[in-house]
Amino acid sequence: MIRGELLILLVLLAGSSTFAGVYIPKTGRRIPQTLSRGWGDQLVWAQTYEEALYWSRSRNKPLMVIFHLDNCPHSQALKKVVAEDNEIQRTLDEDFIILNLVYETVDKNLSPDGQYVPRILFIDPSMTVRADLNGRYSNRMYAYEDQDLKLLIKNMKNAKKLLKREL
Amino acid sequence: MIRGELLILLVLLAGSSTFAGVYIPKTGRRIPQTLSRGWGDQLVWAQTYEEALYWSRSRNKPLMVIFHLDNCPHSQALKKVVAEDNEIQRTLDEDFIILNLVYETVDKNLSPDGQYVPRILFIDPSMTVRADLNGRYSNRMYAYEDQDLKLLIKNMKNAKKLLKREL
Repeated sequence: MIRGELLILLVLLAGSSTFAGVYIPKTGRRIPQTLSRGWGDQLVWAQTYEEALYWSRSRNKPLMVIFHLDNCPHSQALKKVVAEDNEIQRTLDEDFIILNLVYETVDKNLSPDGQYVPRILFIDPSMTVRADLNGRYSNRMYAYEDQDLKLLIKNMKNAKKLLKREL
Repeated sequence: MIRGELLILLVLLAGSSTFAGVYIPKTGRRIPQTLSRGWGDQLVWAQTYEEALYWSRSRNKPLMVIFHLDNCPHSQALKKVVAEDNEIQRTLDEDFIILNLVYETVDKNLSPDGQYVPRILFIDPSMTVRADLNGRYSNRMYAYEDQDLKLLIKNMKNAKKLLKREL
């Protein structure tokens, strides 16, 4: 009997919660989109380029910008190895300002040799795009494949050696 | 027997994944930041202003931009009522492109009377900032308090009446 009442109570509660209602889209419940987009859920990502530049200057840390797309297998493969590599994750967390974008910015300096994905650019806290830190593909200088992780780590180390600021 | 082997395999897999180790920051595990930032977890938020403008033009839907701050009690109060109001949530989901920002953009048109939070701007798919859709405070034209929800809904309805595009 008590169990029956409990059941009724639960049904009523379920009914009322549907009535008061958290909004559910017609197409069904969605998984909220994270700023990390899977590139490192434990890292603190900037939302926009402006925000990232501000953080970079004020904290004197280099900025790493990743351009990628959800439906690009090369982006996905690179994302997997970056997200699973603890050395990269720790270095990004402690020494970098990070931003991942699925849409281009208006700043042409972020596409020195065109717009493609995946593409990784480093920016010095002095707001200089480090065009000298590139990958191994001459036709797409800032592209990295999943097997290029060591080169990416090397470039991250170089990005950490900050350019001298003019006084 | 097969089930037993499967179990052992699962235990081994779990062990190896613990051994390989997911990166955990020194300061402890973090809750991944969502793009919604609590303004409506079931809605699809644009990440950047450029992305939002592109969606607005290509889908012919007005854009609503919310400027806010996590440590601003007025922002928090407004967020609570917006997130809990199903009429607003449904309308935003179905009829608007939405963006919430904790950092200003370089576009001066988004701060017609200064930069403050909370501040809500509507942009027509023709990329015109709807400076005519404002709140009730003459010194901060685009501010809304939590008790201004009806006025916000009224402005949303007006924003849905798209401006005529020039041919």
